This record gives sequence, C-alpha cells and structure tokens, in this order.
Amino acid sequence: MLPAKFTELLQKLIPPERIYFDPVDCYAYAYDNSRKFFPPECVIFPLTTDEVAETIRLCNQFNVPLTPRGRGTGTAGGCLAEMGGATLSLERMIRILSIDIPNRVLITEPGVLNDAVQSVIKPYGFFWPPDPSSAAFSTVGGNLATSAGGPHAVKYGTTRDHVLGLIAVTGKGDMIKTGCYTTKGVVGYDLTRLLIGSEGTLAVITEITLKLTPLPAAKSGLVAHYRDADSCALAIVSIMKESRGPSALEFLDSGSLNLIRTRNPILLPDDSQAMLMIEVDGTEYEILETTDRLLAACQNSGLLKATPVQNTAELWKARKILSPLLRDIAPKKINEDIVVPVDKIPLLLSGLSMLCKQHQIANVNFGHAGNGNIHVNLLIDPDNANEGKRAYQCLNQIFDLVISLKGTLSGEHGVGSEKRPYISKEIDNTTLTLMKQIKLTFDPNNILNPGKLFP
Amino acid sequence: MLPAKFTELLQKLIPPERIYFDPVDCYAYAYDNSRKFFPPECVIFPLTTDEVAETIRLCNQFNVPLTPRGRGTGTAGGCLAEMGGATLSLERMIRILSIDIPNRVLITEPGVLNDAVQSVIKPYGFFWPPDPSSAAFSTVGGNLATSAGGPHAVKYGTTRDHVLGLIAVTGKGDMIKTGCYTTKGVVGYDLTRLLIGSEGTLAVITEITLKLTPLPAAKSGLVAHYRDADSCALAIVSIMKESRGPSALEFLDSGSLNLIRTRNPILLPDDSQAMLMIEVDGTEYEILETTDRLLAACQNSGLLKATPVQNTAELWKARKILSPLLRDIAPKKINEDIVVPVDKIPLLLSGLSMLCKQHQIANVNFGHAGNGNIHVNLLIDPDNANEGKRAYQCLNQIFDLVISLKGTLSGEHGVGSEKRPYISKEIDNTTLTLMKQIKLTFDPNNILNPGKLFP
Repeated sequence: MLPAKFTELLQKLIPPERIYFDPVDCYAYAYDNSRKFFPPECVIFPLTTDEVAETIRLCNQFNVPLTPRGRGTGTAGGCLAEMGGATLSLERMIRILSIDIPNRVLITEPGVLNDAVQSVIKPYGFFWPPDPSSAAFSTVGGNLATSAGGPHAVKYGTTRDHVLGLIAVTGKGDMIKTGCYTTKGVVGYDLTRLLIGSEGTLAVITEITLKLTPLPAAKSGLVAHYRDADSCALAIVSIMKESRGPSALEFLDSGSLNLIRTRNPILLPDDSQAMLMIEVDGTEYEILETTDRLLAACQNSGLLKATPVQNTAELWKARKILSPLLRDIAPKKINEDIVVPVDKIPLLLSGLSMLCKQHQIANVNFGHAGNGNIHVNLLIDPDNANEGKRAYQCLNQIFDLVISLKGTLSGEHGVGSEKRPYISKEIDNTTLTLMKQIKLTFDPNNILNPGKLFP
Repeated sequence: MLPAKFTELLQKLIPPERIYFDPVDCYAYAYDNSRKFFPPECVIFPLTTDEVAETIRLCNQFNVPLTPRGRGTGTAGGCLAEMGGATLSLERMIRILSIDIPNRVLITEPGVLNDAVQSVIKPYGFFWPPDPSSAAFSTVGGNLATSAGGPHAVKYGTTRDHVLGLIAVTGKGDMIKTGCYTTKGVVGYDLTRLLIGSEGTLAVITEITLKLTPLPAAKSGLVAHYRDADSCALAIVSIMKESRGPSALEFLDSGSLNLIRTRNPILLPDDSQAMLMIEVDGTEYEILETTDRLLAACQNSGLLKATPVQNTAELWKARKILSPLLRDIAPKKINEDIVVPVDKIPLLLSGLSMLCKQHQIANVNFGHAGNGNIHVNLLIDPDNANEGKRAYQCLNQIFDLVISLKGTLSGEHGVGSEKRPYISKEIDNTTLTLMKQIKLTFDPNNILNPGKLFP
C-alpha cells in the first residue's frame, strides 16, 4: 500500500535496522490497551528531531498517514495506525539530555520511561509528579500526549502542570520550540500546553523540558469506610476544603468492595458501601497534623470507621486486590475515566447503578475522588455479542449523565478513537470546528494521526 | 475615521450610554501603565457575550480594529488602540455568575476585579492565587490576558494554573467554550491555556471558570541579608529544594538596598548587598517547622543575618518603602520583568551592573527570586533624550544577556507593544510564523488587538 517511491526515499533517510516493513515485525505496533488492532504498513524508529522532521516531510509529499507512538499503553486507541501508513515509534529516543538540579529542570527525549525519569532524579530528592498507573512502562512523550494524571494529581496536578517547554515537529515538518526553561514565562502563545493532550495530532514532540518537584519527606495514610456513597461524598468535599490536603484520595464503590470480599472476606467491614484511601505526605509532624485534620474531615453520620495507616502498602491493599479480580471476571471490560464535580459523585453513582441495572450490565467504580475522576468499569463477556451491544448503549447514556452533571468524558485517558463518537456531547460544533482549523494550521495535509480525536 | 455605516449599526447594537465617541470621554482609555498614548475612536462597553460577538462581527464587516481592555493596569501597552478603531472595555461585565464552594469553583465575568473575587470567597476559606501588585484594581480578564503572577507564584503558580474553562468570542465573532468545570479534563485541545496569555489577540474572554484554593491558616516570614549576590543566589537554590517551600521569596539587590538607606538609614545592616524576604504559610506548627528548615537553607558563608519575622507587614516593609522612592527619583523608569534560571541570578546581576555602567544608566533590581523573575528598573530622566536613547540601547543588551542565560523576556507583564521589538530574540521565526497562523485561524481579518505581540 505504501508508494514505492516513498519506501525508497524513506530508506535513504533512515537506516534499515530502524524501519520495520515485515508484517510480523509490525504486529506488535498494531494494538494498545484499547484492544483494537490496526497494523501499520511500516514502523519507523527515529533518533533525532531532524529525522522526525524529514520523515514527516516525506509523509506529506506522498500523503502517507503517520501515527506517533510511545509504548502503546494508552486505553483510547490514540496510537493506532487506524488509517494504515506508518507508525512513528519514539521508543528509541531515550536520552536524558540534561539534569539541572539547582534549577529543578530535566530535559528528556520523548521515549524515556516515566519511571526512568523518577529513578534518575530521586537521588537528588526530586520527582516528576505525573503518575499514571502505567508509569513503569509508559513514556514521558506518551504521558504528554494525553496530559496523563494519576492518584497524586489531586495534590500535584497533571502532566500539563509539570512541563516548561518543548521541541516539536509540526505536521508540516517544521521544527518549533515552545515555552521556556524557567517556571514563569509569558512571551508568545502557550503552545506547550496546546500540544500537551493533543494526542499526536498537531506535532511530534521530540524534546521535553520537565519541571521537577521536591520529594516529600514521608508518606502515611488513612482508610475510611462509609454506610453509603452520599456520606462518603460529603467527606470528600470536607477533605478537599483543607488547605493542606491529601496527596491521594481514592475511592472504591460498593461494587468494588463486594468484588474484593469474594477474594478476601475479612479485609473490609461488612456494612461498608464506600471506602476512601487517603494518602498524606510531608514531614513527620506535617503528616501527624494533616492526618488529624483529615480524620476530622472524614467524620459524618455515615462514617463507619476511619483508621490511620502508617504503611502505605497497607493503604493501597484493597485497590491492589481489585485490579486482577476485574481482569479475571471480565476479560473485556469497558474502562472509562469520566469526571464529575466532587459533590455530584453520589448522583453519578446512583445514575450509574440505575443505567447498569436497566441495561443488565455488571459495573464496578473506583478512582481519584479528589478530582471527581471515576473509573467506570462495565464488565462484559467478549463472547456475548448482545451484552457488548447493551454495554455500549449503556455507555452512551452514562456519558449523557456525566455531561448533565457538568462533568467531562475523560480525565486522563484522552479521546483517541474510543471516545471519538461521544466528543460532540461535550464540545459544541463551533469550538470543534475551531479545533479542526487549528489541527490544519499545524498539519495542513492531515498526515499526523489522522482521524483521531475528532468525531 | 470610523466608517459612518459602522457607527450607525453599532448604535443599533449598543445603547448610547454604553458607547463613548467624544474624544474627551475616550481620553481615559488612551493609556495604560506603559505611559504610551493612543486614543481610540470609540469605547464600547458590552454587557453580554452576545453583545461582544455582535460587536466583533461588525468590526469584521467594516475592518475596524478592536482592542479589548480591562482596567488598563498593564505595563506593556497591550490594551492600547495603537491602530485606532474601537476599544472594547469589559469593565462593565462585573457579575460573579456562580460560587460553588463544595467544588471550589467560581464563575465570573471578565470585568470583575481580582480583589472582588478574593473578598467574595474569603469568608468561605478560599482564595484565587494570582496576585499581581495591581490586584486591587486590575480585572480577572486582564489577569488572564497576560497570565498574571505575583509574589505567591513561587508556591501557587500563575493565572494559567488556576482557570478551568472559558467562554470566549473569537476574532471571527464565534462563541467558543473551552476547558471544563472539573480539575481534570483532557477532551479536545487545551484552548483555555492557549487563550490565557494571548493578550486579547485571539478572542475576547467573556466568562471565566476559576479554580479556588483553600486559604492557609496563617502566614509568617524570615528576612535574610547577604554579603553579596552570589551567596544570596546560593540560598535561593537551597530554599527552592525544600519540599515545603516558601509562599513568597522576594529579592532586593544592592541598588534597591542603597535607595532604601537614603530614606531609612537604620532599617538595613550596613554591609548587606542582597536581601531576601521569605514568607511561609500554613498551620501554626507548619510555619514553625518550615521557618526552621528555610532558616537552615539560608545558611552559607555569605549570610550576614537571618531573622524570623512574625508580622508579615514587617516582612514587606523594605519593599514597600522602595516603590515610592523609585517613582520619586525616576519618574520615567523602564520596568522590565525578565526571568532567568535561579542559579543564573548572580550572572544576571553582574551583567546588569556592567551594562548599566557602560551605558551610564542608574539601575535597581528586585523581584520574585524563587521563580528567577527579576524586575529590572532602568531609572531615567524623561527630559533627557540622550539618556532615554542610552537606556534603550542598554535594554537591548540586557535582553540579549537574559536569552544567553536561558531566560525569558517576560515573566508576567506580557509582550504588548513594549517588548514587540525584542520577541524574535526569544522565539525563532518558524515558531513565530506558526503563532501568526494561529492568530489568523482565530481572527482572519486581524481585527482583534492588531499589531500586538508580534514583531
């Protein structure tokens, strides 16, 4: 399918050990965590910004779609070569270019793993806050593509809050430099944050200037159980009013708790219908003081039990049990990451319960309560086509519910191809049209990750 | 100069009490804190998003430049009608549309004063962190136009970190809705942050969803004096390595200290060549603990004296004396807000001293040291044309120095018209061209604040 002339010129740009044409080799680049399957016709492994620019220019010349890719851990299909063409794997751009501890700045190529950045800066007493659950095997470039977050976003924010500047190559093949090297800067438009979260549709990011954060001295936590979701949500609101808030505030609903009970019947109080896992960080005294204040914020008539937990491994125990259980009972779960205002969590949960009952779909919800970012899991049997159909009908109504509660369809996964049919529920036509025009300003031939993000 | 038909149609859109045509009335809208003077041919005071949209459409139809304006406190000329045409004053859009304390969200029109927002949310225990020195009389819309910051940005970040979403009208007259109502959200491009800091060149912001922050329980501080700028900068680096850092970290150079000594000879130690004012916030114990740690971070061989200060009014005393003194001795100072990496502050200061000596310009520097954001003041006599010329030659070389130190030309003031001649020092041609294309995507007829921001 690739034009012969394109292939010929590409091979002049990139040496053979850094291009895959063999479908067997390309196979591993055909899927991500969305479980869709779109094999690219070739996979290109650039090492430099120049190689990225020349590759993009060549793709423009021959109208070949180019899909940038980190390590393929995304859940929304954002890195799949849906329209065929070439995949641009950034996984070999793995140099950390500079570490500037006095200024708390690290410059990295996009293929470096999130975890590798953490390992390099930890000895100096710093970390980079974005913490998607894939951090051990997802790339910093991939984290930028979706503005990834995780449990600690409640205190530290998401990826867009921790990047100072970029080098990137637009869909035209132009190298641009965005942002700056300092923590303040207002010269020109904020292209840094325009590119963060743009899922590889505007430009390929080839160099990233990260803002580092000092590591907290220690961590500890609290576990709280509630009689019902309403009182749990009340506690979340109280906790989020504290000036010195939690470093993580995770929530498990009754469905999650019941699932955990099947594996470990004594871990949880029998009457608990909602659980909060609350992490605090800081110095030893700060932790003591914050724990006291958050313990007070947990109190309401629906509280069953709130207990300080010194060992953070203990804190996350219930959550860790849950993930493999979900995989076991429902190999093809639909996993969404919707967000609602914190005080709307009870309405969301009762709505979810009603919709799932109506469509006869098993459902388990948990997530980052401090941001109102709830992972909704619809559990389905891949061999049951009818169940799959019902699940997607249910999902459609769940998204309507989320929008009616002033929420957003995605807190950290992005749109990719998975949420593309629903994006018009959230973004009006005029704004979408403008976004498409911005896309064409960066990428006039629609070469970069074509078809993604827009309905 | 305005086309008669434009004026006629405008008067059908906007009632007479909300349009000024009389040059005497328009006079007050001809200047800002840049001390330039460009009278608009009319001033329009819209009350609604629809009125803004219709006005913009009319300006497109007749090719009339439209310059959005808050309260005119900017220092870079961003709100001046340099090309004539109409000024769009947002100062009557002063409704706070909703206050949602459980979700820590406030929705406001752009003309509301920063201070008015603070007053409304303080009783609930919240604040909105952006704190430009103009906060008492600058509008939230104006704060967004430049992504304003202030002393507390070192802990809390700048405006772009505290806005969730916007309603805005593009230069075409299209109403768009950006961002979301929640603290996480990754659906579509981040137009919110693209508009923040765009100085009214892309769209007119008519509704702003602010993210609120819980107020700290208390504040306290430290004052430290150093033998030289190098040891002071070393202390800044040590302080910024602390996990629980300062809520403000302000710096005064030897020029500033000498000026203060002329008014109050006993306030400062005789041998101090650099001073830090360090504010900490939190609970009573956190303040004690943080003060101890920051006091330790202040220690180095160049430290003369570091003293805790309980009363924050006392802490800011030296800084408060400085401002009127600067006005008295140099009515036409050039006031820049350059930023360098924190560990480059000594090189910046020695470079500044050398350049100012070379060009025979008096110079005083102070500012937000934790961000490396230094207000450089070149003190000139308005009646001395030759001195003015030398000052601008000096400024040109100062900007070169800043760029050579990996800095940025503006940390909080923006480009406007004042820094327009210098922006190419920082942003390369390819990136500038892309920014101009984005401008034309939003504003194809170049109606909105034409001529600003680009060289």
